[in-house]
Amino acid sequence: MSWKISADYDPNQIVANGNKFLLANGYMGYRGTMEEYGAPQLTANTILGLYDQAEDKWREPVNAPNGLFFKIFDQENEISLLTQKPSYHQQMLNYKEGTHIRKTSFSYQENIITLHTERFLHMERFHLMADEIQLSAEKPITLQVKIGIDTAVWDINGPHLINFETERLTSQIIVSAQTQEMRKKITTAQAVCGSQLKFLKSEGQFNYYEIDITPTPTIFHIFATTFNDNDCLNPKNAAKKELDTIMAMDFASLKEEHIQVWQALWEKADVEIDGDNPAQEAIRYSLYQLLSIAPRHSDKVSIPARGLSGQTYKGAIFWDTEMFMLPFFMHVLPEVAKNILSYRIHTLPGAIAKAKEYGFNGAFYAWESQESGQDATSDYNVTDVFTKRPMRTYFRDKQIHISGDIAYAFWQYYEYTEDLNLLLAGGARVIFECAKFYYSYAYYKVEKNRFELIDVIGPDEYHERVYNNAYTNKIALKTIKNALDLWEILAQKAPDQLKEILTESKLTMTEKEQFQQFYDELYMPSPNEDGIIEQFDGYFSLEDVSVSTVKNRLLNDKEYWGGAYGVAADTQVIKQADVIFMLHLFGEEYTKSEIQKNWQYYEPRTEHGSSLSACIYALVACQFDNQDWAYPYFMKTATVDLTENTKQYAGTIYIGGTHPAANGGAWMSAVQGFGGLSVKNGQLVTNPRLPKNWRRLAFNINFHDATYYIEIKAGKKPSITKK
Amino acid sequence: MSWKISADYDPNQIVANGNKFLLANGYMGYRGTMEEYGAPQLTANTILGLYDQAEDKWREPVNAPNGLFFKIFDQENEISLLTQKPSYHQQMLNYKEGTHIRKTSFSYQENIITLHTERFLHMERFHLMADEIQLSAEKPITLQVKIGIDTAVWDINGPHLINFETERLTSQIIVSAQTQEMRKKITTAQAVCGSQLKFLKSEGQFNYYEIDITPTPTIFHIFATTFNDNDCLNPKNAAKKELDTIMAMDFASLKEEHIQVWQALWEKADVEIDGDNPAQEAIRYSLYQLLSIAPRHSDKVSIPARGLSGQTYKGAIFWDTEMFMLPFFMHVLPEVAKNILSYRIHTLPGAIAKAKEYGFNGAFYAWESQESGQDATSDYNVTDVFTKRPMRTYFRDKQIHISGDIAYAFWQYYEYTEDLNLLLAGGARVIFECAKFYYSYAYYKVEKNRFELIDVIGPDEYHERVYNNAYTNKIALKTIKNALDLWEILAQKAPDQLKEILTESKLTMTEKEQFQQFYDELYMPSPNEDGIIEQFDGYFSLEDVSVSTVKNRLLNDKEYWGGAYGVAADTQVIKQADVIFMLHLFGEEYTKSEIQKNWQYYEPRTEHGSSLSACIYALVACQFDNQDWAYPYFMKTATVDLTENTKQYAGTIYIGGTHPAANGGAWMSAVQGFGGLSVKNGQLVTNPRLPKNWRRLAFNINFHDATYYIEIKAGKKPSITKK
Repeated sequence: MSWKISADYDPNQIVANGNKFLLANGYMGYRGTMEEYGAPQLTANTILGLYDQAEDKWREPVNAPNGLFFKIFDQENEISLLTQKPSYHQQMLNYKEGTHIRKTSFSYQENIITLHTERFLHMERFHLMADEIQLSAEKPITLQVKIGIDTAVWDINGPHLINFETERLTSQIIVSAQTQEMRKKITTAQAVCGSQLKFLKSEGQFNYYEIDITPTPTIFHIFATTFNDNDCLNPKNAAKKELDTIMAMDFASLKEEHIQVWQALWEKADVEIDGDNPAQEAIRYSLYQLLSIAPRHSDKVSIPARGLSGQTYKGAIFWDTEMFMLPFFMHVLPEVAKNILSYRIHTLPGAIAKAKEYGFNGAFYAWESQESGQDATSDYNVTDVFTKRPMRTYFRDKQIHISGDIAYAFWQYYEYTEDLNLLLAGGARVIFECAKFYYSYAYYKVEKNRFELIDVIGPDEYHERVYNNAYTNKIALKTIKNALDLWEILAQKAPDQLKEILTESKLTMTEKEQFQQFYDELYMPSPNEDGIIEQFDGYFSLEDVSVSTVKNRLLNDKEYWGGAYGVAADTQVIKQADVIFMLHLFGEEYTKSEIQKNWQYYEPRTEHGSSLSACIYALVACQFDNQDWAYPYFMKTATVDLTENTKQYAGTIYIGGTHPAANGGAWMSAVQGFGGLSVKNGQLVTNPRLPKNWRRLAFNINFHDATYYIEIKAGKKPSITKK
Repeated sequence: MSWKISADYDPNQIVANGNKFLLANGYMGYRGTMEEYGAPQLTANTILGLYDQAEDKWREPVNAPNGLFFKIFDQENEISLLTQKPSYHQQMLNYKEGTHIRKTSFSYQENIITLHTERFLHMERFHLMADEIQLSAEKPITLQVKIGIDTAVWDINGPHLINFETERLTSQIIVSAQTQEMRKKITTAQAVCGSQLKFLKSEGQFNYYEIDITPTPTIFHIFATTFNDNDCLNPKNAAKKELDTIMAMDFASLKEEHIQVWQALWEKADVEIDGDNPAQEAIRYSLYQLLSIAPRHSDKVSIPARGLSGQTYKGAIFWDTEMFMLPFFMHVLPEVAKNILSYRIHTLPGAIAKAKEYGFNGAFYAWESQESGQDATSDYNVTDVFTKRPMRTYFRDKQIHISGDIAYAFWQYYEYTEDLNLLLAGGARVIFECAKFYYSYAYYKVEKNRFELIDVIGPDEYHERVYNNAYTNKIALKTIKNALDLWEILAQKAPDQLKEILTESKLTMTEKEQFQQFYDELYMPSPNEDGIIEQFDGYFSLEDVSVSTVKNRLLNDKEYWGGAYGVAADTQVIKQADVIFMLHLFGEEYTKSEIQKNWQYYEPRTEHGSSLSACIYALVACQFDNQDWAYPYFMKTATVDLTENTKQYAGTIYIGGTHPAANGGAWMSAVQGFGGLSVKNGQLVTNPRLPKNWRRLAFNINFHDATYYIEIKAGKKPSITKK
């Protein structure tokens, strides 16, 4: 087991490798690009929680000026991957230690010049990036290096930074700027440490040095710190101060600190699989992704759908976080779980404002949530490939299950931890406001004596504006149930606080009775005579054709499958787990046979056009003990960022990047699927269904402030040991 | 005043003239094409109420084999408009007498051959077409003529006829065939009468004759009769028998019979306008259209949206008939009004079946109704010009106002006639079933204590799936009110029959209470602070741009403006009168100032992409006494079939033909708009607002089985005289 991935020189893989070799520390990400790369190669140092809107373009996260930039020259000749094919090149990610190593050799004038770098984003000093550079040559040569802060950053909907100011101290460059929309300040400060560097000149945000290179490597270091207005009152001072602190240390000891954090994280998070090396490597790589982007530093932020790999999906927080990542954090890093849930408390006002905007009560959480809970989703979120016109989409106004997903997450956390504190700190209000929202959204069908949730979009986005989506109705029911249960619990355990919360939420016994009636009378589709739950009213009467038939109808590769006229819209072909997602959450209410029948019905009709789909099919197959059917879906979700075998475009819009939800799904599939981990009667229990080659599955679980080591050996009784 | 229109030779106008010079007699239509024309020139003898579906194409009316076909030859040389440019050509419609006259001269071998024909579709002998042909030449010449029944008819979604059988008697050809779908039999029988014709040979459904032509015209006649299974048990015998009857008569006396029917119709229907000849001619031409297609022979049929001008719009009956044509017939030819309303009683089972298909109770009348009330509307009624794919449209499933339109029509007829008989003969059941439908369709919004009609399409089809369309909600309210009022009236006047009707309709006092509650609590949008009624929830927040701006966004001329992504869909630009249509029907509930404000708001936002729009803007402008604003809209609706200045395509689908709804709108605009005719306290009253040039407006009105002559002279008191 190597704990490493690597890639050779391939100019066609620059974007893919940028994602695959991503470094991150929860505060920021740095794409797996080379030091000499710039915007065209999608170099990005993406800052979590700092957003900007340029003109009327989409709001998206800000990429900081690139503090790790450097490039080699021989006078006018640039010697880099951008100008010549290397004689040797490899980039490598050590995901055990969170370091990125790069070695490149260039044949140059009958000499061979070799560049070897190692960089990391410090896992505790969140504002720090460090890069160690070693230069050597077969024959001595004097070269120039350009080092500095590249402000020409990659932006999808930029430029975001204006009013640049540059300050130059001995061996330091400090670049400060402001965002366009809210004039948020950001500073990147860079220091270069290396006695062999002879200063030549300054130009803009760059310094030029001369350096004598020999067969013995010449070593120097670049350190960069980044602060913005979200972090402190004076980002420039903070960046400079942090840089000064760093300068008093050295690369090796900083790296050591960094690795120790990683060690501690791996001790908690590692999942060991014996007998299946590809699965072992894939799960660890998935865990690396989750651990590296986990916001350990703040409870005002959460994890975007593409992690910290750039600006795709507007850097927004989707249901991905609660439904696909939260289980991992809750079981492994509860403080991160608490942070990302707190983000939803922090953004409750945004969700209340959104509900109001649409004429509803309660909290309508954003489909694409940014820093204050504002919904970044455009009404035109896809572009028509034929007319190049924006297409009216309904993700923003109709995908109402997000509120229920968030309420569910709070409840899940409460049930797992049996800790009321987060609920009392705002979570209860979230649940109540979400319940109010559904009551407000619902319509009553008098003739049928039932409430319905009509004109919605379920998880399967290819079918817009449907009635009574099974998952949506179920998660709304669950939300109401949670609200009613919570009301009782708080009345018992925290009556004074309940009173306050009810006052804030404008809830009285009248509303409680309404919730009860709503709960009793909200329609939930039942399995039909064949045991199949209809995804939404009328789904069964849609054209029943195969995914490949539908795919063959595409006239253009990038064409959107959904929307009003997409190839999937009037067929039973769905984008992703929908009824199966409902069974993933609520499987205990159905028989194994019903679950299996639904899996078998929906599985061949699912395109898996979303990276959220595979893990759910893996998990639900485990519910009916079919690990053979689950396994390929597990491998798909666990390798998604290794293979990059995912959609890169929705319409004409780039949607690439890393897939933390799929990574979280890999953990769930392994631990909760194959391991069958759950809590029963206040106890951790397992119900293993190991894939056939797996000899052993072992992992740690944090439960009620204690750590449990769980080991499942094929054919033996699982052991759960309190550490 | 000529009572005639004519056209010279113009091969680019063949399709347009086919519409403009249409002959019809209520039973069938014959397009204004030349005798030698065939399918490529859209020759069609369209039979009302006989429909067929070929394969899985759209159901549409059947065009009978062409019994008026003939062509001139000189041996192998065809002498016709299809082979040579004429030295003279004119076609003429005498719309006072319903005859089509054609005169064509060909320069041929230093000779001039002249063809003069006059034809009509007999207005009482509904199955008969007759054509008198006169041939002359400057110099004597012997020619051949081919006369027979052309079975290669124009079809949009054909071919519809199969199993052809031909019978040949002396000077007669009888062609029988069957429709594909239901194997309905149809027979066309043709006789040629002319002693100068020397029989040469038979070939298929044609006979060849030799004829000597001199400067003195040689005259002969073609008679054709057509019967089908809808008319009698044995169409072949009926067609032959009718032909034998005809053969015992002569062309002149048949024509005389025919003209007398027209005279009688004009006596009832004519509208005289002094001082504005273009208006006079346009209104008469409009009345010709209505009179010629009025089904006087049957109460099982109604008038299609394109009359009898072909197969466009599937020959289906739309709301056009009740909302735009019925007022004319009710005031002028009450027996036709009764026939077309009876069609809706006859097709009630189809409407009940459609409601059931969608999971509703009551009667959901077809958007495009065919012979049994089945809805011919495809779920894909438009083709995308960019992808050539069918587009999912919602005319069929969401345009629910049609049921209310029909209920309204029955009620209007009852109020005007004070005659309960049609209601007792089935009309009451129609009203009750339509009320049931709306109750079943509606949803209750608990938080707002109101019923809503959501996810509908109003008259303006460019905005799909909207909530609380003002017109739809209003017509539903009116339907419920009618049902409640009717219940009371019948309880008083026909208690036994009411009991029967209630049993048939499964209505009890419980449903009556539900109707009452529905009536009390159905939401109806009120004028906002500016006095404007919002067309549907959220309409005011759509982009507010001009019609020409929207038009400039078209990438393709034939592109559909509506649908999910059409250029109008997300703007306030509407296809046709919608709120204004609501005010047309229910203006008495609003102040003149409110009506005017709404007219002024919506008028510049209306594309008038439907021929149903102009007359409503004319009528509503008259409501606030602005005949200057009304006049151009009156002229637009009254000349629609003269100018053919209408959309010829929806997507890639041909929608041309005649526009009887616009013709009915012309009558309404003149009589009810400018004349201000209405019934108040059981009396006919006028409220004239004549356009400034009009010196006199005069017309007859049938009211309570009497005829009233109404004369309005500018500046004088109008006179209403019982005849």
